[in-house]
Amino acid sequence: MNRQRWIVGADIGGTNLVVGVVPAEGGEALAVRSQPTDAPRGPEAIVTDVVRMARDAVREVLAQNGGQHADVIGMGVGCPGPVDRGSGVVIESPNLRWRDFPLRDRVQALVDWPVGVDNDANCATYGEWWQGAGKGSSSLVGIIIGTGVGGGFIYKGRLVHGASDGAGEVGHTTINVSGRRCACGNDGCLEAYASGPAIAARAREGLEAGAESILSSIVDERLDEITAATVYEAVVQGDPYATEVMTETAKFLGAGIANVINILNPEAVVIMGGVTRAGDHLFVPLKAEVRRRAFKALVAACRILPAHLPGTAGVVGAAGIMAAQLNGDPSA
Amino acid sequence: MNRQRWIVGADIGGTNLVVGVVPAEGGEALAVRSQPTDAPRGPEAIVTDVVRMARDAVREVLAQNGGQHADVIGMGVGCPGPVDRGSGVVIESPNLRWRDFPLRDRVQALVDWPVGVDNDANCATYGEWWQGAGKGSSSLVGIIIGTGVGGGFIYKGRLVHGASDGAGEVGHTTINVSGRRCACGNDGCLEAYASGPAIAARAREGLEAGAESILSSIVDERLDEITAATVYEAVVQGDPYATEVMTETAKFLGAGIANVINILNPEAVVIMGGVTRAGDHLFVPLKAEVRRRAFKALVAACRILPAHLPGTAGVVGAAGIMAAQLNGDPSA
Repeated sequence: MNRQRWIVGADIGGTNLVVGVVPAEGGEALAVRSQPTDAPRGPEAIVTDVVRMARDAVREVLAQNGGQHADVIGMGVGCPGPVDRGSGVVIESPNLRWRDFPLRDRVQALVDWPVGVDNDANCATYGEWWQGAGKGSSSLVGIIIGTGVGGGFIYKGRLVHGASDGAGEVGHTTINVSGRRCACGNDGCLEAYASGPAIAARAREGLEAGAESILSSIVDERLDEITAATVYEAVVQGDPYATEVMTETAKFLGAGIANVINILNPEAVVIMGGVTRAGDHLFVPLKAEVRRRAFKALVAACRILPAHLPGTAGVVGAAGIMAAQLNGDPSA
Repeated sequence: MNRQRWIVGADIGGTNLVVGVVPAEGGEALAVRSQPTDAPRGPEAIVTDVVRMARDAVREVLAQNGGQHADVIGMGVGCPGPVDRGSGVVIESPNLRWRDFPLRDRVQALVDWPVGVDNDANCATYGEWWQGAGKGSSSLVGIIIGTGVGGGFIYKGRLVHGASDGAGEVGHTTINVSGRRCACGNDGCLEAYASGPAIAARAREGLEAGAESILSSIVDERLDEITAATVYEAVVQGDPYATEVMTETAKFLGAGIANVINILNPEAVVIMGGVTRAGDHLFVPLKAEVRRRAFKALVAACRILPAHLPGTAGVVGAAGIMAAQLNGDPSA
């Protein structure tokens, strides 16, 4: 049997850094570690931490599986915002407040494995396609709901990066032409309705307008402490108002998903992020909305699935993209 | 020099049949002929006419260029509605009132060239990419504004057909979640705002609500005779109300185009159809709306262009797809 080869995956998020080690031929992330990003300290300190976490994870995996340092053949790093893959530079990451940061070179200076970088939503999408809910699909759209709404598109087993590595911004598609202002400056983006903060804001606005709900008591009447997680909690407890907020969320998400289905006719759409914890409260009205909006034949051809790799899709995908590149597929 | 080879292209539209002959290595459509579709007479009579037009066009081209029947190496046919390319069956074409019609086999029974079929918007998009405004682009979105709003997506020089040959329906993406009812059954589709009939309907509604415009006199107060072409005519004459209708059209189209730019990050978007006759009255506000809505880096990477092949993009593209297939590229 050949020696087991490994690839390090790192996911630099606005909230957490997550690092793990993935078998080069595919598999789950091992020796996963996570710590707060603490973005205000700046990119250099974050790179130092990511590399330290990577070394620790590699040590752990090699200790448990045998093998030696040379069996680690690469490292993939995912990061929010548009990333120029050719130069390895993060063009702009509003969540991290980075601009034109040479992420790949800074990581590469500290490790002897080849390093590649990509957008975090692309990495998570690739992870769910390579080893998760979308395994075996030829085409897949990933939608990641968190602080924002990100996305990625796999076509014929490869990520579609687009002309300037910016493809996949499903969250920044207009679903309501004169609607809510989005952080990106546009009006009526999907993200302005369906991101975690947007779900919380819509819930809060209804309460301020007099809606009755256990949400108010969950946060001790401090409405500005409502988060998307609080809304799910109230939904699970059967609260009608919170359920209505979730149904509305499903309606907006359904419109956005119907749009990508009608444009791309993918085999699968995988929904990632905390909002999937709402389970049927989200997926039942969401699928109904997609059926109502998209063409029947295209809906019939598309599975809409919750993620299988919560918390590690980005790590697995960053490693998977690097594995594909090491196998000679630069577009992964 | 090798003998010149030719491919027949046919575009079966809801209004007109257009047929021409295209050099197999690319070029403009020659010996182009057009006649009304007259859809109510049914598909068999239409197939008979298309084949007769094809034979006439071939005769004309061979007479003018020399050559013989065997120099015609294939025929591509475009048709509205979802088409199963494998079986050559038109699944459903509401404009033609066809359902499960075996178009390829019926044409193939009458000619001795190999025949291929594809969706008409895919053909027009491919035509503009192969020989028109988008020549040389690696990725391109085509948007065709006519009775409906169709679309196609070229990626790495090939059409993206999707999991069930249904990709590219940019016209049926929601831009206004609770907006105008679309013929497809959805609310707020781009097509419900920006197709020819939708432009006319919006113009009419404003006049019925009391707006002043030369539009009323152009149609002799018979408001139901207003068409998109009447609106362009009034725009060209400087009518403020018609200009406002066109600016609104540009706004809706801009939102739809910004959506495909943010999802796909294409090198080019080509706008086809009669609406392009409005020229700067359309393109100036349209580009401004796209800039306002899509990410700057993605807008910078994308040219938004009027079509170069009005009337023949579908013919050229149907032939071009067939040429690619004969060269061993089934996904064209």
